[in-house]
Amino acid sequence: MKGKELQELVCAANLELARSGLVFSTWGNVSGIDRADGVMWIKPSGVPYDQLTPEKIVPVSLETGEPLQKDWRPSSDTPTHLELYRNWPQIGGIVHTHSLYATAWAQAGKSIPCLGTTHADDFFGAIPCTRRLNPQEVDQNYEQNTGKVIVETFSDLKLDPLQRPGILVNGHGPFSWGKDPHEAVHKAIVLEYIAKMAFLTLQINKETSPLEEYLLQKHFLRKHGPDAYYGQVNN
Amino acid sequence: MKGKELQELVCAANLELARSGLVFSTWGNVSGIDRADGVMWIKPSGVPYDQLTPEKIVPVSLETGEPLQKDWRPSSDTPTHLELYRNWPQIGGIVHTHSLYATAWAQAGKSIPCLGTTHADDFFGAIPCTRRLNPQEVDQNYEQNTGKVIVETFSDLKLDPLQRPGILVNGHGPFSWGKDPHEAVHKAIVLEYIAKMAFLTLQINKETSPLEEYLLQKHFLRKHGPDAYYGQVNN
Amino acid sequence: MKGKELQELVCAANLELARSGLVFSTWGNVSGIDRADGVMWIKPSGVPYDQLTPEKIVPVSLETGEPLQKDWRPSSDTPTHLELYRNWPQIGGIVHTHSLYATAWAQAGKSIPCLGTTHADDFFGAIPCTRRLNPQEVDQNYEQNTGKVIVETFSDLKLDPLQRPGILVNGHGPFSWGKDPHEAVHKAIVLEYIAKMAFLTLQINKETSPLEEYLLQKHFLRKHGPDAYYGQVNN
Amino acid sequence: MKGKELQELVCAANLELARSGLVFSTWGNVSGIDRADGVMWIKPSGVPYDQLTPEKIVPVSLETGEPLQKDWRPSSDTPTHLELYRNWPQIGGIVHTHSLYATAWAQAGKSIPCLGTTHADDFFGAIPCTRRLNPQEVDQNYEQNTGKVIVETFSDLKLDPLQRPGILVNGHGPFSWGKDPHEAVHKAIVLEYIAKMAFLTLQINKETSPLEEYLLQKHFLRKHGPDAYYGQVNN
Repeated sequence: MKGKELQELVCAANLELARSGLVFSTWGNVSGIDRADGVMWIKPSGVPYDQLTPEKIVPVSLETGEPLQKDWRPSSDTPTHLELYRNWPQIGGIVHTHSLYATAWAQAGKSIPCLGTTHADDFFGAIPCTRRLNPQEVDQNYEQNTGKVIVETFSDLKLDPLQRPGILVNGHGPFSWGKDPHEAVHKAIVLEYIAKMAFLTLQINKETSPLEEYLLQKHFLRKHGPDAYYGQVNN
Repeated sequence: MKGKELQELVCAANLELARSGLVFSTWGNVSGIDRADGVMWIKPSGVPYDQLTPEKIVPVSLETGEPLQKDWRPSSDTPTHLELYRNWPQIGGIVHTHSLYATAWAQAGKSIPCLGTTHADDFFGAIPCTRRLNPQEVDQNYEQNTGKVIVETFSDLKLDPLQRPGILVNGHGPFSWGKDPHEAVHKAIVLEYIAKMAFLTLQINKETSPLEEYLLQKHFLRKHGPDAYYGQVNN
Repeated sequence: MKGKELQELVCAANLELARSGLVFSTWGNVSGIDRADGVMWIKPSGVPYDQLTPEKIVPVSLETGEPLQKDWRPSSDTPTHLELYRNWPQIGGIVHTHSLYATAWAQAGKSIPCLGTTHADDFFGAIPCTRRLNPQEVDQNYEQNTGKVIVETFSDLKLDPLQRPGILVNGHGPFSWGKDPHEAVHKAIVLEYIAKMAFLTLQINKETSPLEEYLLQKHFLRKHGPDAYYGQVNN
Repeated sequence: MKGKELQELVCAANLELARSGLVFSTWGNVSGIDRADGVMWIKPSGVPYDQLTPEKIVPVSLETGEPLQKDWRPSSDTPTHLELYRNWPQIGGIVHTHSLYATAWAQAGKSIPCLGTTHADDFFGAIPCTRRLNPQEVDQNYEQNTGKVIVETFSDLKLDPLQRPGILVNGHGPFSWGKDPHEAVHKAIVLEYIAKMAFLTLQINKETSPLEEYLLQKHFLRKHGPDAYYGQVNN
């Protein structure tokens, strides 16, 4: 998908995010990428969702990081999105929010353990939390370094971004992604849901251990991959 | 009730579940059974609630477990529902959700103790949590084995399904049921409500002891059974 | 107020309670009293709020406790309401709910301490929790005994019902009241709000001590009594 | 801004506060100031939001504290607002609420530590909690003394009100402010959001340490001050 069509899709995904209740005011953003032309489309910076229209979605060059028009400034998180698209060719949409429970886990500096099948249906294991950025990384190219520490975390843990479609940036909040912007929004909503559920579970029983590997595999793989049997055949 | 009439009722009960706020996206499902013809009607797999219409509700043979039409695949939880209908002739509707608080208790692997009269009005004692399934049970016929472990738990504890119309599947989430699909949905909502209330109660006072037997009996029996005096005479 | 006018007011107060989000399904009830004629008007038992109309509000004799018409059975909590009206001539409306946080405190068997000025604005000190009823009190005249233990608690603690317009029945849930049904509903909403706020406060700092007496007096008395200076002069 | 225009703006900001869900019943209030004429406009006392119209917004003399018309009595918190406007010439709007999480922190007597970038985006460090007022301060000029203890806290901690646009009054609740009434409402909503997030964070990990100074500075200053790069150029 490209051009005007992708611009409209990214706008629709941003509005879907707003309706989900995960974002307040101008917080949060969704982007989508046109791999053929090397163009990322992203929410403009600081624009309230009720004033968002497709023509305000900003095209940015994947290669140079420069906006390809001058009417609207892209989200200040643009360099983070670009860094992920550059490193992970398999993804097509990214979402950033400060949703309550996922952000609380990020602020606590803790990964979200996989404690049940709801989690396992969408994330193939714990949702990792990055290390904290150091002063140099914050001082220069902060937003790009946020992307780098995400990629570093996945690389260190040898994780596949489409099997683990989200992360917590330490002290900041969650990013999620998918094969397209709508899937990325879906993952952002699921991430917040399981962040709340994991919080409650550990409040009820702080000794709860992670789901057994065989149950994790069963649930993730019945929804994803070649032997999936969830949903309709042509869906 | 049977045929088209039951199909519409099951559709309506699924939509009632969606309106209750207990389910997100395509999660959750409601079924109903026609005992005379041995046919269960259940939500199709992976279909969003806003696209659900009566003709998409799938008939499945109680005996063989096979769908009786080919347009839509039934919920992946179909074998769990069937197992319960086969073992408990007194029930007529089943609901499965991943509602937040009930699922948190299931993930924590804890039964929900009866801590007050709100609980006692609908459930005649604690809401049990099953044991965890073992690797063999997960590997082969996972969904059917989920039904078997529910029946096993009720059998071991000598519980009457209509007096204790719900359970927590360990690491997974709640199932509830009733004499028909609407009652099963009602029990799912009450189960989530008392799961939250029990959570809060133990946060306030972790030494809270279960409701006394005489108070539990009073509340359950004033709403259920031959001497019930709650509600209108002809209701 | 009396007759048809009070019947309509009690119906409106029940619907206001339903809109407040404090009650689910047919739970909860509001009553009002006509002191001149000795008639209490109360919600019918087990009727959903969306089917509630003024003509279904049931008149009951304050003296005999008998319904004064036969079309609808009054709430099963009727004897509790009557007991309060008989002992406290200063009140004109009563509400019962199973609202989440207030009920959690009741289940935990704890009074809600006055931890801040929000509480002090409406309740002149802690919201008491009754003792548990004993087997004899539950077995015979349970609902009336619920009223008796409320009156006993206020009598033992030497509390004025209009200065402390609510209570927690141990293991059950909250009752609140006021000079009329609308005020009783208002107090039910405030009670749930401060029950949640007290819960959160103690989670943040379990050593929080109750509000100083001089601050409690200041806040309660600037809204209530002869020197009140809150609100408009003619309100 | 002044006169009728400011009166309408203050009314709109009060209604925005009501829509935000932070206030119940007649609780909470918003004011705005006309520095040129020395007139503060504030919500009338005890008037429900659904009955609020611009002509009910009360003008009060900044110098004398007296209402400049007699139809409506100003909010009982008027002397608190005036005290802040007199001491802080840089602010143009003030909000007071009893929002759940911020008030819980106030009741617990704890400042809200800055635990993440969501907080740092709007508040340049911890949100302070005042000391408790003493009996003399409560007995005489209570509302004005509430303002004085806010100013004292900022003075003792050497804080800039526009960099730290909110405070918790010990045992009472939050006040927030901004360059105009709408900004003050925005800060009230953000304050409640981060109060909840900080609560959750410490529940997940009670050892969570405050955000590093370099990350706090980065986030606050990219949105505020001469080098800000968030939002659109002409916003």
